[in-house]
Amino acid sequence: MLRFECDYGEGAAPQVLALLGDTNLEQTPGYGEDAYCAKAAAQIRTLCQAPNAAVHFFVGATQANLTVIDAALRPWQGVLCAESGHIHVHETGAVEATGHKCLALPAVNGKITAAQVKAATAAHRANPSHEHEVQPGMVYISNPTEDGTLYTKAELAALAAACREAGLYLFVDGARMAYGLTAPGNDLTLPDYAPLCDVFYLGGTKCGALFGEALVVVNPALQTDFRYAIKQHGGMLAKGRLLGLQFLALLAGETGSGNSPYYTLARRANKQAAQLAAAFAAKGCAMLYPSPTNQQFPILPETALAALAKNYSFTDCGAVDATHRAARFCTSWATRQQDVDALVADIAALAL
Amino acid sequence: MLRFECDYGEGAAPQVLALLGDTNLEQTPGYGEDAYCAKAAAQIRTLCQAPNAAVHFFVGATQANLTVIDAALRPWQGVLCAESGHIHVHETGAVEATGHKCLALPAVNGKITAAQVKAATAAHRANPSHEHEVQPGMVYISNPTEDGTLYTKAELAALAAACREAGLYLFVDGARMAYGLTAPGNDLTLPDYAPLCDVFYLGGTKCGALFGEALVVVNPALQTDFRYAIKQHGGMLAKGRLLGLQFLALLAGETGSGNSPYYTLARRANKQAAQLAAAFAAKGCAMLYPSPTNQQFPILPETALAALAKNYSFTDCGAVDATHRAARFCTSWATRQQDVDALVADIAALAL
Amino acid sequence: MLRFECDYGEGAAPQVLALLGDTNLEQTPGYGEDAYCAKAAAQIRTLCQAPNAAVHFFVGATQANLTVIDAALRPWQGVLCAESGHIHVHETGAVEATGHKCLALPAVNGKITAAQVKAATAAHRANPSHEHEVQPGMVYISNPTEDGTLYTKAELAALAAACREAGLYLFVDGARMAYGLTAPGNDLTLPDYAPLCDVFYLGGTKCGALFGEALVVVNPALQTDFRYAIKQHGGMLAKGRLLGLQFLALLAGETGSGNSPYYTLARRANKQAAQLAAAFAAKGCAMLYPSPTNQQFPILPETALAALAKNYSFTDCGAVDATHRAARFCTSWATRQQDVDALVADIAALAL
Amino acid sequence: MLRFECDYGEGAAPQVLALLGDTNLEQTPGYGEDAYCAKAAAQIRTLCQAPNAAVHFFVGATQANLTVIDAALRPWQGVLCAESGHIHVHETGAVEATGHKCLALPAVNGKITAAQVKAATAAHRANPSHEHEVQPGMVYISNPTEDGTLYTKAELAALAAACREAGLYLFVDGARMAYGLTAPGNDLTLPDYAPLCDVFYLGGTKCGALFGEALVVVNPALQTDFRYAIKQHGGMLAKGRLLGLQFLALLAGETGSGNSPYYTLARRANKQAAQLAAAFAAKGCAMLYPSPTNQQFPILPETALAALAKNYSFTDCGAVDATHRAARFCTSWATRQQDVDALVADIAALAL
Repeated sequence: MLRFECDYGEGAAPQVLALLGDTNLEQTPGYGEDAYCAKAAAQIRTLCQAPNAAVHFFVGATQANLTVIDAALRPWQGVLCAESGHIHVHETGAVEATGHKCLALPAVNGKITAAQVKAATAAHRANPSHEHEVQPGMVYISNPTEDGTLYTKAELAALAAACREAGLYLFVDGARMAYGLTAPGNDLTLPDYAPLCDVFYLGGTKCGALFGEALVVVNPALQTDFRYAIKQHGGMLAKGRLLGLQFLALLAGETGSGNSPYYTLARRANKQAAQLAAAFAAKGCAMLYPSPTNQQFPILPETALAALAKNYSFTDCGAVDATHRAARFCTSWATRQQDVDALVADIAALAL
Repeated sequence: MLRFECDYGEGAAPQVLALLGDTNLEQTPGYGEDAYCAKAAAQIRTLCQAPNAAVHFFVGATQANLTVIDAALRPWQGVLCAESGHIHVHETGAVEATGHKCLALPAVNGKITAAQVKAATAAHRANPSHEHEVQPGMVYISNPTEDGTLYTKAELAALAAACREAGLYLFVDGARMAYGLTAPGNDLTLPDYAPLCDVFYLGGTKCGALFGEALVVVNPALQTDFRYAIKQHGGMLAKGRLLGLQFLALLAGETGSGNSPYYTLARRANKQAAQLAAAFAAKGCAMLYPSPTNQQFPILPETALAALAKNYSFTDCGAVDATHRAARFCTSWATRQQDVDALVADIAALAL
Repeated sequence: MLRFECDYGEGAAPQVLALLGDTNLEQTPGYGEDAYCAKAAAQIRTLCQAPNAAVHFFVGATQANLTVIDAALRPWQGVLCAESGHIHVHETGAVEATGHKCLALPAVNGKITAAQVKAATAAHRANPSHEHEVQPGMVYISNPTEDGTLYTKAELAALAAACREAGLYLFVDGARMAYGLTAPGNDLTLPDYAPLCDVFYLGGTKCGALFGEALVVVNPALQTDFRYAIKQHGGMLAKGRLLGLQFLALLAGETGSGNSPYYTLARRANKQAAQLAAAFAAKGCAMLYPSPTNQQFPILPETALAALAKNYSFTDCGAVDATHRAARFCTSWATRQQDVDALVADIAALAL
Repeated sequence: MLRFECDYGEGAAPQVLALLGDTNLEQTPGYGEDAYCAKAAAQIRTLCQAPNAAVHFFVGATQANLTVIDAALRPWQGVLCAESGHIHVHETGAVEATGHKCLALPAVNGKITAAQVKAATAAHRANPSHEHEVQPGMVYISNPTEDGTLYTKAELAALAAACREAGLYLFVDGARMAYGLTAPGNDLTLPDYAPLCDVFYLGGTKCGALFGEALVVVNPALQTDFRYAIKQHGGMLAKGRLLGLQFLALLAGETGSGNSPYYTLARRANKQAAQLAAAFAAKGCAMLYPSPTNQQFPILPETALAALAKNYSFTDCGAVDATHRAARFCTSWATRQQDVDALVADIAALAL
């Protein structure tokens, strides 16, 4: 079985394992207060051109999401998000478990718009009984989205402007940040994110680390006492240096030119995904979403999916019509070209 | 600086790193549903002689504690614990953040008794307005305790009996389980824990893993839907196999004789701790708690502590009288004998 | 200004005030453990033909809703409800504040169907990653709905069957129960509710009491320790007898024939609402929802609404098209016929 | 049975019932946005000499406590309180259910001191791992305390100074405020409270109302969006005017001279309590606490308590030694002098 169902099926980039091994018996303080975390944080601040940002490391994305949202919001506030947003449908109500409601908005290709944010906040303010509703306090988006699509710089800027006008925080879930930064057509760089967002993260788990997300807290109002929030939710790793070390390995030598493993591994995965997309297109398959990143969502006859399922794992995305279903195929930092080639060949051989 | 302030200052036992490296590029399903987790769970069930137990892996102990307690209790129930219990004083109110109150009991050397549990539950039942009080729903203990001490088999059995009589769950935090299992005088084995406890864990983070705790859920009532609870609190590691693999490495070859790294590394650390204790005793120092495990709590003149602090890190445990303070010195699975020897020599050289 | 914007604009039925006055200086135990609460509970059990039900009294409906849902659900469970459900859109996220997600379903005239419940639970079970989703644990409906409409006995029975098959609780918010029980065409009686629902309530606040909801807990699994839940959420009224007394006054003499104030006052309000509906219909106005109860939702030109707003208060329900808006007009147990007559006349005089 | 076990055993002062009756059929907006609430709030601001305070009305004290604390604190903050504090031991963990820990301090006669607050906050700041502890965010006291005792103006001022220095809010639970304001020896007036506290309340439930607490939010930081918090916790009474009306009745004509029912009824109850205290003292009974207010805590032989229990209800406060127990006897705004006289006579007749 060749696995294409997700981008967390393997361990870590060799550079990550090597650095963990090299430093294994060093003694450092715990809980992220070591020199490696400090060094990784400094580099991330530099790459983001955000010298005053606070950087914190989390083991996983759900943990990061729930901690940020709980720390940012007042008890009666909720978070505007796409109806397909990870926090709304894939995290077992983790946000609600901290007391906050996800205020889901209809999404096109996984994206929401500044106009939707303006309309939602305007409607709330206009309601004379607004105290009976959850107050919007934040906008959460994922980039790349859960559908593999990307926000443009203009779209993100418009969301940021809408948030500032309405007094909302803007939070970007960057679990697949590396794939977004290196996607064809992407126009958003790390230095673009910092001034537009209040808080965002660079995902590691899906981008070459064993685990880990690097949270960049730009807004000073969110920086105060943030480590209490991490600890309270069980997210403060005892051997915190493991997180700093992994980002140091992934970002080694990076100065913005995109030559570090974080960028090069993701760029390669995007190319492999494009090869899969081309193979499906050559067979006349439509795609559920127009994704330039490492997730591809072809629509196929059920029989064709069944045929592929004999040798490949992928994610079922549900029925599209009576005889067709959509599926998700992921490449990752670890995808072997030979596996892609095999899948491309088998797609080409499908009887559609 | 030689570090003795905790038992999570280094990385992992070499066997752990080796296994992670050997399996790094294998593809497996995520979220703990892989064959390595299954194999590790099976071995732990065997070692505990608990064939029907469910085994789940967590990244860290606070995450395990808050998830177990939240999943076990009804909303109006609280958890009886020692006033020195980790959940009560070292986890930023993580349990309260899930809505449950820690019902702290006075502790002697970090331990609470069956008599205290009986008294607390009897008082609650006897109160005609008991609905105005938090209802005890669970007893939480740590073994070894936060003070390095151990419960005897008789003490644990008495606690278990008190819990069953009162309808409470018994939960044992085993973050330092390996040090307890291998301590001189300990009479509690893994097969003893399973029938006495409803849920307990074998700590990995402090016992040779990079991170990880193996939770053993014995009581079937706590097994249903438990993975939802893990995910909701952000505790479900995407690359879950990393947890299974680490326990496989630590427990390699273990059949109860205590020859696996999990036992041998802890046994060695306990011996080193005893060397430190002997060195302090030889200087006439009293110990704050009578610990047979890897944490030692000598009481020293402030001047002596200041002298040691030049070359050694340790944890300040507060003033004992006008001129003396207690301190915590930890050994661990990684402690080098040469460091212990150096510290022993420097203790011997103290002018007390 | 004549007020038609809600059904809680006045105090209480005279019988309620009289009984409160007559008993004012009696001494009773507090917190609902008095003889009046016991007597009211017994009568409600009798009227519901539910001799084993537990009856608890709440001051208000939001308090009742959040307490029931929090007490019933496991932490990772959510509550299926209409997208227009009171708990989803009118209670400031009270349910989420207890940690539980509202799982909103599209609604027609404020109602959801057994088929929707079956589909939602089937989809959850079929998802191989269902632990990453909130688990449905309960169905919440309002009857009458927020749109004034009613479930039929067949619809409620189908919902109950779907719930039992899927292991969900069925909870009916009866804040306007009296208006439903006495509406033309209604075929649901109190003895019908008890065997179909796990828990439901008879609203008092909107039906003639100063305040108060009488919760009927039919399912024994929800009865245990329920008073703890009430107290924990601040819902246990010190002078609890005030609640029992009010329901005794409203249900005085009631044996099922519908002659008590609870029924007669609501029946009269429904008739007045029908007079308003007829007046709007006579002018050719469409209604937003087909309501047989005390809430009516006519669609009117903005100019006509503005004209009515000079002398009458009502609730704006939003734009229907470029020139028309919907509005809610409520009658209540306290509505004076002369006010209805005046409004009917002014509707008739509208230039549409 | 003559009832002395609490101060909420009867209904309301006649003036309260009369005003509710007089206004019963008036139509007003709901949810506290009516003219009566506005008028009552204005009067309370005037009496407190706090023209910029926000005043909100709650049905009960637990509801007020949990709402204020949840609205005020950041998620990782807890509330310092006496170990005998109502929120810590009599509210079923209502505060913890909102996610916040009660940080209990040893109390003498129900009171805590500025020195304790300073020590607790200093210890937290001094801990290098303070992120692993709950951060103190507020001090909660009751005045009168649960033991019937009073804080002096100097004590409250010292607490306020300690709070401001440490950045904590000071919250005074005034469920029995009227008894404190009118107690012999009290030196704290309403105009004293406002500048010292961030938020406090004037209890109505125990002081002559059917129910109700008037919360005075002095600190502007706590005023923003507070009505959302009330609604979210189910504390927003639909017919909110009932709360405003009751305080208008109790404070009728009050300008600070203490001639309104709120003061005169409490003053009378304090005198009656003093008569009971004198009767116990005449028999040589010690008192558990030195209370000048309406709660008295005599220590009596168990046999004597059993004798009194035949005709009087009171609250058992537990064993003091092998043969003696303490009990609580309460007077209230409704206590009949003839009942006090009877009890005084029966105390005098006890064979001690």
